[in-house]
Amino acid sequence: MEMAQVGPKVSIALLHYPVYDRNRREVATAVTNLDLHDLARMARTYGLFRYYVVTPVLEQRILAERIRGHWQDGAGGNYNPDRREALKLLQIVPGLDDVLADLENINNRKVQVIATGACPRKGALSCGELRRTMEEGNGPYLLLFGTGWGLTDELFERADLILEPIKGSGDYNHLPVRAAAAIILDRLLGER
Amino acid sequence: MEMAQVGPKVSIALLHYPVYDRNRREVATAVTNLDLHDLARMARTYGLFRYYVVTPVLEQRILAERIRGHWQDGAGGNYNPDRREALKLLQIVPGLDDVLADLENINNRKVQVIATGACPRKGALSCGELRRTMEEGNGPYLLLFGTGWGLTDELFERADLILEPIKGSGDYNHLPVRAAAAIILDRLLGER
Repeated sequence: MEMAQVGPKVSIALLHYPVYDRNRREVATAVTNLDLHDLARMARTYGLFRYYVVTPVLEQRILAERIRGHWQDGAGGNYNPDRREALKLLQIVPGLDDVLADLENINNRKVQVIATGACPRKGALSCGELRRTMEEGNGPYLLLFGTGWGLTDELFERADLILEPIKGSGDYNHLPVRAAAAIILDRLLGER
Repeated sequence: MEMAQVGPKVSIALLHYPVYDRNRREVATAVTNLDLHDLARMARTYGLFRYYVVTPVLEQRILAERIRGHWQDGAGGNYNPDRREALKLLQIVPGLDDVLADLENINNRKVQVIATGACPRKGALSCGELRRTMEEGNGPYLLLFGTGWGLTDELFERADLILEPIKGSGDYNHLPVRAAAAIILDRLLGER
């Protein structure tokens, strides 16, 4: 199956900085327990390589490591082995540069960075186009997801590729990042 | 577009009872703040008719109503109008019978109930098959999602249709219900 080939080329990163707040100020958002688990499970389901949680705030990384540790090593791992299995993919790092260095170090190739967001942007690919690109390319591919009110413009400029926003049936485009990530992974890597 | 026709025929219900716990005991799970918001946003994005949160526990319904009230009427509504908009679809009811009575009362037709879950079951439809069924039928359609370790067998027996589980790239089938709901709505109602 093609999925078995594409998933391992793909990683995701959930960025808590730099993202916008509701007033379009650049901020660092707080790590949430649920985002750690939910995206780890999605990553595991679709056979991804790694799931990076990115925050420059040391206390937040310590918190995230503690949550991971509970479900991986402690009583939580025995209580819920599925969660432990998913959290194996999780890496907690200060910045996007750390993600890129990690992936490039392992793969010995430049990472193709793909920015996602809720606003239409010039030159953005559809999920179908990106799916074909990823099937044909070597990767590694890194999908960036923004918390808060989304990734800053700087990240879209820095990205190699931009993915079109998920559209529903109207002009309401306020999916939670967890839902957008699930839908995007399914469109890119799900059974067809 | 076809979506504009199908979405309004479809509602979703998140059941906190009757569902299984990890030891396959029938339990009532707790309402979570995030499930209220996340599924409401998905329902709004895909143009659904209603989003029902079902729990027989009175205190839980009061809690859920209070959360909704905060984001709809109070300071929260002004702070986050997108959230208010989505929560308009939310109905909080004690049982599945209340959901069916509400939908049948409005539509004057029997509801087609569709059960979802993570285990394969005999006679289950693929998302593609259900999509065609819903495009051709009159509805109303109600998709049931289970919290905890999933809907009880009784609900699968009671349902008119059963949807196949979402498969990823392997045998790991532990998506969070929020992610499964997002993927299913996109497969049934998203742009094609």
